[in-house]
Amino acid sequence: MEIANEDRARVLVQALPYIQKYAGKTIVVKYGGNAMIDEKLKDAVMSDIVLMQLVGIHVVLVHGGGPEISAMLKKIGKESRFVHGMRVTDAETVDIVQMVLAGKVNKALVQLLEAHSGHAIGLCGLDGSMLRAEKLVSADDLGFVGQITEVHPEIIQDAENNGYVPVISTVAGGYDGEVYNINADVAAARIAACLHAEKLILMTDVRGLLRDKEDERTIIPVVQVSAVPKLKKEGIISGGMLPKIDCCVEAVRRGVKRAHIIDGRISHSILVELFSDEGIGTMFY
Amino acid sequence: MEIANEDRARVLVQALPYIQKYAGKTIVVKYGGNAMIDEKLKDAVMSDIVLMQLVGIHVVLVHGGGPEISAMLKKIGKESRFVHGMRVTDAETVDIVQMVLAGKVNKALVQLLEAHSGHAIGLCGLDGSMLRAEKLVSADDLGFVGQITEVHPEIIQDAENNGYVPVISTVAGGYDGEVYNINADVAAARIAACLHAEKLILMTDVRGLLRDKEDERTIIPVVQVSAVPKLKKEGIISGGMLPKIDCCVEAVRRGVKRAHIIDGRISHSILVELFSDEGIGTMFY
Amino acid sequence: MEIANEDRARVLVQALPYIQKYAGKTIVVKYGGNAMIDEKLKDAVMSDIVLMQLVGIHVVLVHGGGPEISAMLKKIGKESRFVHGMRVTDAETVDIVQMVLAGKVNKALVQLLEAHSGHAIGLCGLDGSMLRAEKLVSADDLGFVGQITEVHPEIIQDAENNGYVPVISTVAGGYDGEVYNINADVAAARIAACLHAEKLILMTDVRGLLRDKEDERTIIPVVQVSAVPKLKKEGIISGGMLPKIDCCVEAVRRGVKRAHIIDGRISHSILVELFSDEGIGTMFY
Amino acid sequence: MEIANEDRARVLVQALPYIQKYAGKTIVVKYGGNAMIDEKLKDAVMSDIVLMQLVGIHVVLVHGGGPEISAMLKKIGKESRFVHGMRVTDAETVDIVQMVLAGKVNKALVQLLEAHSGHAIGLCGLDGSMLRAEKLVSADDLGFVGQITEVHPEIIQDAENNGYVPVISTVAGGYDGEVYNINADVAAARIAACLHAEKLILMTDVRGLLRDKEDERTIIPVVQVSAVPKLKKEGIISGGMLPKIDCCVEAVRRGVKRAHIIDGRISHSILVELFSDEGIGTMFY
Amino acid sequence: MEIANEDRARVLVQALPYIQKYAGKTIVVKYGGNAMIDEKLKDAVMSDIVLMQLVGIHVVLVHGGGPEISAMLKKIGKESRFVHGMRVTDAETVDIVQMVLAGKVNKALVQLLEAHSGHAIGLCGLDGSMLRAEKLVSADDLGFVGQITEVHPEIIQDAENNGYVPVISTVAGGYDGEVYNINADVAAARIAACLHAEKLILMTDVRGLLRDKEDERTIIPVVQVSAVPKLKKEGIISGGMLPKIDCCVEAVRRGVKRAHIIDGRISHSILVELFSDEGIGTMFY
Amino acid sequence: MEIANEDRARVLVQALPYIQKYAGKTIVVKYGGNAMIDEKLKDAVMSDIVLMQLVGIHVVLVHGGGPEISAMLKKIGKESRFVHGMRVTDAETVDIVQMVLAGKVNKALVQLLEAHSGHAIGLCGLDGSMLRAEKLVSADDLGFVGQITEVHPEIIQDAENNGYVPVISTVAGGYDGEVYNINADVAAARIAACLHAEKLILMTDVRGLLRDKEDERTIIPVVQVSAVPKLKKEGIISGGMLPKIDCCVEAVRRGVKRAHIIDGRISHSILVELFSDEGIGTMFY
Repeated sequence: MEIANEDRARVLVQALPYIQKYAGKTIVVKYGGNAMIDEKLKDAVMSDIVLMQLVGIHVVLVHGGGPEISAMLKKIGKESRFVHGMRVTDAETVDIVQMVLAGKVNKALVQLLEAHSGHAIGLCGLDGSMLRAEKLVSADDLGFVGQITEVHPEIIQDAENNGYVPVISTVAGGYDGEVYNINADVAAARIAACLHAEKLILMTDVRGLLRDKEDERTIIPVVQVSAVPKLKKEGIISGGMLPKIDCCVEAVRRGVKRAHIIDGRISHSILVELFSDEGIGTMFY
Repeated sequence: MEIANEDRARVLVQALPYIQKYAGKTIVVKYGGNAMIDEKLKDAVMSDIVLMQLVGIHVVLVHGGGPEISAMLKKIGKESRFVHGMRVTDAETVDIVQMVLAGKVNKALVQLLEAHSGHAIGLCGLDGSMLRAEKLVSADDLGFVGQITEVHPEIIQDAENNGYVPVISTVAGGYDGEVYNINADVAAARIAACLHAEKLILMTDVRGLLRDKEDERTIIPVVQVSAVPKLKKEGIISGGMLPKIDCCVEAVRRGVKRAHIIDGRISHSILVELFSDEGIGTMFY
Repeated sequence: MEIANEDRARVLVQALPYIQKYAGKTIVVKYGGNAMIDEKLKDAVMSDIVLMQLVGIHVVLVHGGGPEISAMLKKIGKESRFVHGMRVTDAETVDIVQMVLAGKVNKALVQLLEAHSGHAIGLCGLDGSMLRAEKLVSADDLGFVGQITEVHPEIIQDAENNGYVPVISTVAGGYDGEVYNINADVAAARIAACLHAEKLILMTDVRGLLRDKEDERTIIPVVQVSAVPKLKKEGIISGGMLPKIDCCVEAVRRGVKRAHIIDGRISHSILVELFSDEGIGTMFY
Repeated sequence: MEIANEDRARVLVQALPYIQKYAGKTIVVKYGGNAMIDEKLKDAVMSDIVLMQLVGIHVVLVHGGGPEISAMLKKIGKESRFVHGMRVTDAETVDIVQMVLAGKVNKALVQLLEAHSGHAIGLCGLDGSMLRAEKLVSADDLGFVGQITEVHPEIIQDAENNGYVPVISTVAGGYDGEVYNINADVAAARIAACLHAEKLILMTDVRGLLRDKEDERTIIPVVQVSAVPKLKKEGIISGGMLPKIDCCVEAVRRGVKRAHIIDGRISHSILVELFSDEGIGTMFY
Repeated sequence: MEIANEDRARVLVQALPYIQKYAGKTIVVKYGGNAMIDEKLKDAVMSDIVLMQLVGIHVVLVHGGGPEISAMLKKIGKESRFVHGMRVTDAETVDIVQMVLAGKVNKALVQLLEAHSGHAIGLCGLDGSMLRAEKLVSADDLGFVGQITEVHPEIIQDAENNGYVPVISTVAGGYDGEVYNINADVAAARIAACLHAEKLILMTDVRGLLRDKEDERTIIPVVQVSAVPKLKKEGIISGGMLPKIDCCVEAVRRGVKRAHIIDGRISHSILVELFSDEGIGTMFY
Repeated sequence: MEIANEDRARVLVQALPYIQKYAGKTIVVKYGGNAMIDEKLKDAVMSDIVLMQLVGIHVVLVHGGGPEISAMLKKIGKESRFVHGMRVTDAETVDIVQMVLAGKVNKALVQLLEAHSGHAIGLCGLDGSMLRAEKLVSADDLGFVGQITEVHPEIIQDAENNGYVPVISTVAGGYDGEVYNINADVAAARIAACLHAEKLILMTDVRGLLRDKEDERTIIPVVQVSAVPKLKKEGIISGGMLPKIDCCVEAVRRGVKRAHIIDGRISHSILVELFSDEGIGTMFY
């Protein structure tokens, strides 16, 4: 659809109150899923982030990279193994995880943001000891899967103060000198809390929380975190949504104003969320 | 026309390169004509300016106020008299000019910008001795009509550094302690030059420079200042356009990158000029 | 009287402890009455203020302008009407009030201070939304007479930090978009409180608070605010002094160290107040 | 050997003039060879760098990683192929190079420096568009081997100003959106020049420039860059030393005060170079 | 003993954790005794201080000067008289004390530090009214011997912020305009407390606190201030050690982390104290 | 003479243009002669300096101390010997000079300024290596009389930036580690030049330059430095005035705007010079 210049100007002006609302605030975006694979969606996300930076929003981009890790493991003849959705991570695997996340996915995102005239810097949990972790306690031995014990946000804040969008891979250093693989949703929630973020946005491949999983029209736009236990009991929150919504609840409990599950398959879903009254996806507060 | 959220996001993203281009730059807008009378247009201009401020453009708003001055003079039973388009300004008149411009029009614009969540401060040439003037030399005695002898832009820069849009009335102090009425287009050009502005935008009630005054489709979009003398000789630049285009030429000669004559009757004409490739009106460089 | 150079030097040196006492402190002066009409007194006040600025005192000048307003109203054939000393202010009148105060009186003071080599900036309650007001509740409908609901002193502080004496007209914006006329004494007291001023000085046309109104020798030099109710009951505080002294009490109650009623008819009365032990007029603390 | 406390103090004090000489200066260290493989040497290098940072020297650590790259390539069943000492780099290889350098070697060094109580940040040429490159022009098609066209040192300087040792992997972004592999010695020289470094130190696995390759006692301690052509003609500079010494000459020509080839097999060779009069290895100036 | 370069480097690296521990902290050194007389020891102290300054420690040097004072008094034919170890100080004597301390000893130390490439400034208690005092109350009239009533550390902090080592003579101004001689140990303790110093180091001519005064091997390395009364009762703390240890206790009680009595007769005793685990002398905490 | 409050205010206001003229400028005062001996004059000078500091003038006070030195030398039984007005200074003498100037006179002035509520710091040429000197070359061996080879004004500027009046004793460090006695007039001239001072004021015990030495009414108020040789030839400049006027000429030649010889026997002579049109004494430019 062709949009006339005057309409364009009107759209810009209508964005004003939203820009004013978020200027100077920190928004942590967990980037993953289709939005990270489809080239057109990827391009839209990069544009959204550069625009946010330009109007004065402090964006922090936390990314995953499951498919790329699996592909690389396959290349060296190693099969990916998962327990309850978590990757079993032996020493060789955590090495590959670190390389793929911090060396490939991360720096490729930086390169893309710079190509969109943004300013970006690629960091991981090891830089400035940003994330410290210990072995995740669980029934099954998952190897070098870690849980965060400390977040040192100074290096993120330095990056922001210098005008860069920090792009973050979620591997962390252990007290034993080892490296641990950290779930990116969880890390994003913890980082958002530490930065006193205004929003945590988790990009997923679903519309949001649906009352009836088969019907996207049953989306629940707003959920108070106190209502989550009941929704779990009713089975409305279940399956893959469970850990994601737990991250949202955790973030809100630790002081993040609002946490969102949005549909990364929709182009410019971040901007739509930020710059419209109705928003998109499901918001937790 | 209703615009879908995704299209809105796309419009925002397409504004990115223009925002990047002007962020941190100074743009002086001479505000006047219909855009200052029609309530809807006025509202659009205020929105445009607050948006520009928000995305990091330093806007300086220089305004006129002829109709309000005439109305007030009429109220005290005094007729407005003009010679070659310039108001004959006796002592009583210059008093009214100062009151109406610096006390009413100026502060009302400040109030309006603040109501649009902008930050604004109302100044005139007397504040911080911003504009110094002497009596304009002309064939006819025009009274207290002045020509600028000095511009001290510090108070404008202080206002910008503190985050306010400076709104400026063009009365100036003379070395004799008198106040002089200054043509607002001329003052805007001089201020733009002093601030090393990226752009001077003169809002008028015409489409721009037309090759055939009767046909708006004959608009000349771009004019090199070196071509102006020839256009004058051909009679294409004539009448009321003469002094306005002289201001544009003067501004460019003194170092302003580009000067524009735009049509204030078109809603959001400033944003359209800034945020589209084709622009609007006539540009001088 | 001719004063020898050595005596001049001695006078300067004797001013030292007073300068040291007030350097870096804020002093709000409400300027009005004869000191604003008589040219010689006016000149002395301007000198006093520039000197105070130079020795490091932060002066804030709040002014009235009743006579000029009445004169302008008369010019447009409108009579001034007062109820309990307050001007009945219809829509047309508030327009004139704003023009005369913010456009004429204010900017003329700025021009005068600049002519005395001071640095000044003319502001009103609309600039930076400094003063917000609502309609004054009173038995009689006074029209657009307002009472202050919010003071935002940032724009005053910015002006001071940039080295300008802020000169302030007391019109304020309402939440309804209207402009309200504010009593200048009241506004000065509120501004002084907001700025944690060291002193509020109200320039009047009386010697100070007199025990016997007919005898200037009965001046009461110092009054504790707790003694004011008794002085009112005794009739010593009455008539036109009532609202002025209420302002002093209000200012002191809100944290201003000292409030003074001084006689603006005495040349350099501000400096005499500041730079002598005995002071001048009546001090409230 | 046990050293008595007083002797220790004496050693510290004797380091004084050297510390004073380099405090506030930038020293670029190209880290590679044995010093990067042997655990004890590695540990000594990390200590040296943290000490340098602590006494106020701005250290920039540029690293290679040939052996790790070859190992990873081997793991995916790909053979390393070299032409004139340069790795032939197809698309799959450059991907591995980026991952291994920026994701593994780089972040492991950061982790190690942090473990030594240093502050470090891992960067590559893509971060903040630090290094831009184009395909290296050469007789043989080397694939994605690049030559630097632009260095943007701002991100390095930001890191230093924030108190981090920048650890840099030498992959660079092309104008075509591709990633190019850059020779680390060459990149270190260019970065040193851009930062107006006091010194460029290339850590190698040789004693320095030897007059007789078989006899380490024939080391040439100091070489003026103008003498290099003659030394080449005489065959004293030849083989693997050729490109390294070209880097030294290039750095000096572009304004680096001194360039050094030191023997990374000697423990604490960097400190010995900095903190003794005789230095170590061969110095070019 | 000749120390090899590699050993030197190792010594430097081993100092790392100590440097990291004290960088940015304030250490007040009371300088006196043999270390101030013996040229070689003096030289070592100067080196130690310049090194400390260089690695980011804020050193404050408080000095005495008893022997120089006695020598000068003798020169003018006046005998030194002491009561309980305190100099009886008549008007003529305090004059000499001030001259010798602030004019000779102080400035000579400054000159020496500057000769060691340090940056130093010589201050006394009169500069910036750093130390205010009144006559010491005591059984015997000691004349112009004072006790500190106020410490104004701003001038010391200014000196540090400007990069100078403050060298301080302990004469103080009285409220009566007189000058008082202050015990340097006491002054150092008070200054250390005011600066929230990490350490107070008193340089003496003894090993430390000895359990058996005749046997240096009985040194008590660490004493909790709460144990001091008992040690006094046991006679272990007695004689000349009494006032020195009282200073240590006073300093610790007022917030100084640790106070040390070290043996100034050992070369580089300050560095040995700071840069070894076992330290030297006796530490109070 | 009793001066009325209003007259006092008038005097203050009349000082305005002078204060405005010198605010932010540096004025170096060489203090000596009667003004340093007579208690009432001394008090007046202290007041003048504190006032100057308060109104924003950067005062630097350079002092002599001949009489105190002679008195001290006499006390130790040593006679003062002069050649061409310069003190013959053996090793023992220079020691006394340093002690008396830097330890007694200097700090006593600091104490006095502080007692007048000023902020002062006592420095000498050794502090921060402010003055470097070598032995003065002259026909007669004057011993440790030096001539300045370098001025490092940083420590003076640091003192000013921190808000202290620097009080300076003119002893300087030699490259040989010795201390040299420097003529205070000469040092003041060199310091004034280095600080790009607006004025150098030499306080003397004469009216100024007199055409007829016997008649104070023949004072020459203004002298261009180019006229000095002629005045010397005519014998008008002769005797003790010769070196003082040479200092003035030297200062002006090195860029000081104006140099003054004023009569320190007149109370507040500095303020009279600064704050009146006619000034006092003789001005060189």
